[in-house]
Amino acid sequence: MSPRSKERFEFDTIRLDDSLSESQYSQLEGQIRSAISGRLLSAGTRVPSSRKLAQILGISRNTVLTAYEQLISEGYLETVRGSGTRVAGLPPEAFEFDEHPQLPLTGTATAECLSAAGRRLTELAKSFPSAADRATPFRPHLPAVDEFPVAVWNRFANERARWSSQQLNHCDPQGFPPLREAIAEYMAISRGVACAAEQVVVTSGAQQGLSLVMQLLIEPNDTVWVEEPGNAPANQLLELARARVVPVPLDAEGIDVSGMPTRGGKPKLIYVTPGGQWPMAMTMSLNRRLELLTVAQRHESWVIEDDYNGEFRYTGRPHPALCSLDQSGRTIYMGTFSKMLFPAIRLGFLIVPPKLSQTFAYARWLHDRFSPPLTQMVLHRFIESGNFLKHIRRMRSLYNDRQKFLYHSLLEHLKTHIEVDLPESGLHLVVRGVTARAEDRLIAAAKRAGVEYHSVKMYSREPKAVRGIILGFAAFDKQATEKAIRDWSVELARSSP
Amino acid sequence: MSPRSKERFEFDTIRLDDSLSESQYSQLEGQIRSAISGRLLSAGTRVPSSRKLAQILGISRNTVLTAYEQLISEGYLETVRGSGTRVAGLPPEAFEFDEHPQLPLTGTATAECLSAAGRRLTELAKSFPSAADRATPFRPHLPAVDEFPVAVWNRFANERARWSSQQLNHCDPQGFPPLREAIAEYMAISRGVACAAEQVVVTSGAQQGLSLVMQLLIEPNDTVWVEEPGNAPANQLLELARARVVPVPLDAEGIDVSGMPTRGGKPKLIYVTPGGQWPMAMTMSLNRRLELLTVAQRHESWVIEDDYNGEFRYTGRPHPALCSLDQSGRTIYMGTFSKMLFPAIRLGFLIVPPKLSQTFAYARWLHDRFSPPLTQMVLHRFIESGNFLKHIRRMRSLYNDRQKFLYHSLLEHLKTHIEVDLPESGLHLVVRGVTARAEDRLIAAAKRAGVEYHSVKMYSREPKAVRGIILGFAAFDKQATEKAIRDWSVELARSSP
Repeated sequence: MSPRSKERFEFDTIRLDDSLSESQYSQLEGQIRSAISGRLLSAGTRVPSSRKLAQILGISRNTVLTAYEQLISEGYLETVRGSGTRVAGLPPEAFEFDEHPQLPLTGTATAECLSAAGRRLTELAKSFPSAADRATPFRPHLPAVDEFPVAVWNRFANERARWSSQQLNHCDPQGFPPLREAIAEYMAISRGVACAAEQVVVTSGAQQGLSLVMQLLIEPNDTVWVEEPGNAPANQLLELARARVVPVPLDAEGIDVSGMPTRGGKPKLIYVTPGGQWPMAMTMSLNRRLELLTVAQRHESWVIEDDYNGEFRYTGRPHPALCSLDQSGRTIYMGTFSKMLFPAIRLGFLIVPPKLSQTFAYARWLHDRFSPPLTQMVLHRFIESGNFLKHIRRMRSLYNDRQKFLYHSLLEHLKTHIEVDLPESGLHLVVRGVTARAEDRLIAAAKRAGVEYHSVKMYSREPKAVRGIILGFAAFDKQATEKAIRDWSVELARSSP
Repeated sequence: MSPRSKERFEFDTIRLDDSLSESQYSQLEGQIRSAISGRLLSAGTRVPSSRKLAQILGISRNTVLTAYEQLISEGYLETVRGSGTRVAGLPPEAFEFDEHPQLPLTGTATAECLSAAGRRLTELAKSFPSAADRATPFRPHLPAVDEFPVAVWNRFANERARWSSQQLNHCDPQGFPPLREAIAEYMAISRGVACAAEQVVVTSGAQQGLSLVMQLLIEPNDTVWVEEPGNAPANQLLELARARVVPVPLDAEGIDVSGMPTRGGKPKLIYVTPGGQWPMAMTMSLNRRLELLTVAQRHESWVIEDDYNGEFRYTGRPHPALCSLDQSGRTIYMGTFSKMLFPAIRLGFLIVPPKLSQTFAYARWLHDRFSPPLTQMVLHRFIESGNFLKHIRRMRSLYNDRQKFLYHSLLEHLKTHIEVDLPESGLHLVVRGVTARAEDRLIAAAKRAGVEYHSVKMYSREPKAVRGIILGFAAFDKQATEKAIRDWSVELARSSP
């Protein structure tokens, strides 16, 4: 039982909020009910007379009477002749438990009782960054949610809400079929990828897409090539699946698989982020794309194309997606709406070979059934109505401005200490100190100034070999960006020799 | 590209719906935009004049002009001097792809390229029951979603929607903290389980709870005891984790572990549904609960208590939950809101030992991040306001009526052919034919009458040994139930000797 429930309930702590659409008596009723349920009011306690409580709260006596009546009818209160109204012997839902229940599960269960995967997860959990509620510049992985057209979205949600009980029931585990149609259409128009709705598998985001791909494709001891530095959570999933994770170096054109030895085993899978590498932000060149596909075909490898921010490209013509260049059908495309719209949407998708879509759908069903149909319906409407492309267009232009602004602010205030590139795409920049010592000073100053960042080391399997500070810019306006950079440079000046 | 896009678009297929809150010009604009995006209208196609289109659709010319102007400003249409308005050369978002794009991923990728788990999932997917959109009597696993107070839920959703961008961003992977508080409080009040909010891990439902538990607790070759017949999808997850799944027999008091040999290995985990066994519907007796915990303690086994429908108990006093009887901290409790509220909610929870909650949260994060915060916030409000317990109470009474009604209808119309028990809890009944032949005839008649059912065989690892027809009653009113039973008995009469 939560500590709260040990306290006694004071009726004058009841607060009725006029700005809510919920009526006063219903609010009153709810708060007394919770107090009884939560054992703040114990059985037999006398409640104030309706006149008294009305006075305390400054409301009409009828409101109190209405609330009391309802609670009596529900069995929370009872009227005892001659002694007023009291909290009933047992709340209607009460289970007769021990007066002093103990916390269950306080036994010896610890990480030692877990599987190898469980023990590894316990280790990993220790270094999990505790995300403060309010993001500050320059936390990466965040789109500009303040700019999301919430009103339009809610309008669609409310239209749908009136429709039917379809939104309350089970849903196709592969995804709401009209949404899959809309995604296939969008992929053709916007990303140059031609696919059928039957190939689209709706997921709860890119991460679930990865989790499913790995279960379906990877055996223990399979070799998997990944970008170095790269997507650390993807690598963790691979390791939990007991894959042999082999890092492949990057250069300005992206991953370079040409010189990779295969003595340790041909790669069963190659995981890449060609649209804008995470975290180094370069775009994979067309030559490298073709080379990668040739190597994959030679080794009979699967290719996972994680296009987590493919829409946010600011300069240059987009290269064709790997999955549209691939003639051999070895590429699985992963998309997500977390970055395109907002992280809380929990919707993404895979594009898989037609013969495998049923298998993916079944795996989804077995692990967590299906995505909420209402959200899928609203997203479908959001896409069909043109609001989706309109929002993407607005955000592309906004992020382009924010990217340039951060870049120029960095050069203006920190020029002599840093190196920084302006990538063609993405929602973050990577800053390096001009020397290793300069980078240490930059990081120390960022910490003192309260500037949020990720380090490239966090995404590296060889952390000693890499440098770089990752700055996400998409969620922060010019004012916030300018202030953070100024604070940072002030702190840096203090510590500089 | 989807087949639809090969067709040509006819302007007179545009349909404007007056009942929508979306304005006519916005609807018109959206439909033309989609037609262009979807290549139903190819570049250079002349669109009808505003006067003409207004006439065709029976709307004002201004409406058409407003829509055209918007589409011109967005680059979907262009005005060519002297030749009217045409579809622009390229939609603004267009990627210059091949005129005749091929389906990607049409290569040789088939089940043979998958992992062992992937191949097994491909097999399992073949027997996946295709759930028709509209459920008919007596499909199991469905609560009465028609009775859900959608208006209250939507009111809370809309209140929250006004609040902040908090609902759009990332969320604690362990679950929205006030919801975890509310769940802990509810478990104390209603289920007699005392736990702290820190022990609650919000999941996307019982199935994800299972999936996480298995990754954290089970190694390949670990022995797991399960009820026979039992929860088939749980068994499939266990097998994918390469566990040795050992069926344990049931009797009227539930699972009987007393006589189980451990030559093949002590059980690492015992999975049970004590509140109302799936699918046989008996409640586990108090003695059996204590015996199970003693055996688990002796073997140092984990116990998974899947309380998927623990709220729906109609007679008798509830037995204490295993996790509240357990003094050794080996029981993990699984709950779900799918049955208590509605399947599309995609929220459930685990109660885990305090020392393991961070590990579970991290595993959740790694596999699919977190549950949508808005839904968690609305559910929290729904519980705190008393609506949750009110709904549970209403449903318990409704399901009790429906259970009795189905039971008596079965006895009235099929008496001489069947055996049926009236269990203390649950959302389904199990009917057996008086003989194996009688059961075959019952099943054949059900199929002809369009009566939906699951068979106990579907949930058995020894399908030849079991009989029984599972009938879900919760989602169907008396009229629907009566009609289905009548149709069934008519079909049965036709085939009876």
